[in-house]
Amino acid sequence: MEFSDIIEIIHPSLAETERKIDEFIKSDVPLVYEIAKYLLGGGGKRIRPSLVLLSSAACGLTDGENRIAAAAGIELFHAGTLFHDDVVDQAEFRRGNASSNIVWGNKPTVLVGDFMLARGLELIYSCGSLELLRVVSRASSRLAEGHVLEIMSERKMIEISEDFCFSVIDHKTAALIECSTETGALLANTSNGAVRALSHYGHNIGIAFQLIDDALDYCSEENKFGKKTGQDLAERKMTLPLYYSIENAPEGVKRKVIETLDKEDDLDSSEIAEISQLVAHYRGVDLTRKRAKEFVVEAKKSLDEIPQNDYKESLGRLADYVAERNF
Amino acid sequence: MEFSDIIEIIHPSLAETERKIDEFIKSDVPLVYEIAKYLLGGGGKRIRPSLVLLSSAACGLTDGENRIAAAAGIELFHAGTLFHDDVVDQAEFRRGNASSNIVWGNKPTVLVGDFMLARGLELIYSCGSLELLRVVSRASSRLAEGHVLEIMSERKMIEISEDFCFSVIDHKTAALIECSTETGALLANTSNGAVRALSHYGHNIGIAFQLIDDALDYCSEENKFGKKTGQDLAERKMTLPLYYSIENAPEGVKRKVIETLDKEDDLDSSEIAEISQLVAHYRGVDLTRKRAKEFVVEAKKSLDEIPQNDYKESLGRLADYVAERNF
Repeated sequence: MEFSDIIEIIHPSLAETERKIDEFIKSDVPLVYEIAKYLLGGGGKRIRPSLVLLSSAACGLTDGENRIAAAAGIELFHAGTLFHDDVVDQAEFRRGNASSNIVWGNKPTVLVGDFMLARGLELIYSCGSLELLRVVSRASSRLAEGHVLEIMSERKMIEISEDFCFSVIDHKTAALIECSTETGALLANTSNGAVRALSHYGHNIGIAFQLIDDALDYCSEENKFGKKTGQDLAERKMTLPLYYSIENAPEGVKRKVIETLDKEDDLDSSEIAEISQLVAHYRGVDLTRKRAKEFVVEAKKSLDEIPQNDYKESLGRLADYVAERNF
Repeated sequence: MEFSDIIEIIHPSLAETERKIDEFIKSDVPLVYEIAKYLLGGGGKRIRPSLVLLSSAACGLTDGENRIAAAAGIELFHAGTLFHDDVVDQAEFRRGNASSNIVWGNKPTVLVGDFMLARGLELIYSCGSLELLRVVSRASSRLAEGHVLEIMSERKMIEISEDFCFSVIDHKTAALIECSTETGALLANTSNGAVRALSHYGHNIGIAFQLIDDALDYCSEENKFGKKTGQDLAERKMTLPLYYSIENAPEGVKRKVIETLDKEDDLDSSEIAEISQLVAHYRGVDLTRKRAKEFVVEAKKSLDEIPQNDYKESLGRLADYVAERNF
């Protein structure tokens, strides 16, 4: 199933969300709009806005301005953090284009990131719900903590374990996806049980989403994924495909790989190739995909708490899509 | 008058604010706390929290948790943007110490900046006022726009005029200082007239504050100011001391300076010395200080709207301090 088929049901609301995003990135300062537009006009699946809109609709709210404002606000939050990530990671590509830090440099990229976070916040504020602001601001600090955790692992400031890898994923990706579905439920003024169920659903597909992202970094076709593969390995980010492969390898191989990963200099292309082969051989990608599927099963289970309707159906299909996507 | 004498009257509340700040920068991720603490533990005058507390007290609110949370929240917002500024400006010093980007690098500095913005937001949220969140989020997007405006001037993407220089100041500094005094007034549930008066007061001392900062960059003794002087010129930021000097210089001198500022390469030390002498000779610093005093007069005028009390007296003295400070 294509992603566009899954979200067809909320198509008019997503189109409204696009207009709202465009309205809110306009600035008296032309360069700000130009840079923000460059990222936000360049595609992206709009998973988070889709989750806000599907969740609110699944709980019975299918019209009104607040859903649109919240969906647009969370996407602006997400986009602001992408700008900061690209500076932090010295990324070269984003969504198949040269990333903003390459086109405009780090300075405007950091600042337009801040601008988008602030405008996202103004949109969330416009919904008039303090509870919503609490959820979004909490997600936002968890996100920042997640990226610092990741850096600590690159600098070997921390012992890497499976738990640690999941903690990074939980903070840096699941937090904002969980926030999207929780936001949708909160806007619909639904029961606490339904809010918890959708928040749980979001948390689990958020983890699955990142697991697949980490898997694709080892195996996707470059032009489909929209960014260079092998990036995590080049930056020596310890993600689960690599972690599981190392755990599965015999002691001698394991020791050699860890030595390579621990050396001071950048990895050269033969070392990267060697470790990639190890990941393929010891099935780290398969295992990661398998874990992702478990989280998707868990996510779909929580949907049982929500009354049957077409939007809930779409949330179920979206969960499957997350685990099966190839780019 | 020393700054510490002016704020003596709110000393216990400021001490509470410090404890609140420390509580809110604690993180499960030890490195996050360490970096945040490095900046926030390293001094700083706490002008914004002082303004929140003095403004709310001048309007009759002298106790309760909200004043403290808002004061701490706005300081965290400010600190988060300082982290981003230091990355953007490749600063070497902050408050007399090596800046965070030098000690930990750009990556964690950007991210801990995001973390502090998010935690500041959580503090503002805890005050339970949507109006407050509106004021803070608006200030926060103006701040980011201000820094992009500044970059546009460095890249000569825009015609520099006196108005342009004031627009940068208005966005990048006055917005958050105005937000501090407005926040204090809003928390006190005072009349609309008093909110407007304190907001106007904050706007004007905010502009004066930045004008003096820009002046000090040309004339302060380095160890007092806590950062290297001459930085604005080295980065070719067009601030008012330079702008006024160029305007006052004879046509030939003017043309030569603009040529130097417009060249591709970095300025060398003899060029910096030459332009610094021009600023001294054509009285750019004096003129900037004179303008700052005008804004302070305007600020003090708005205090007439507030009933007489000791806190209002302190706000008046704080305005004078802003225009007269030498570091």
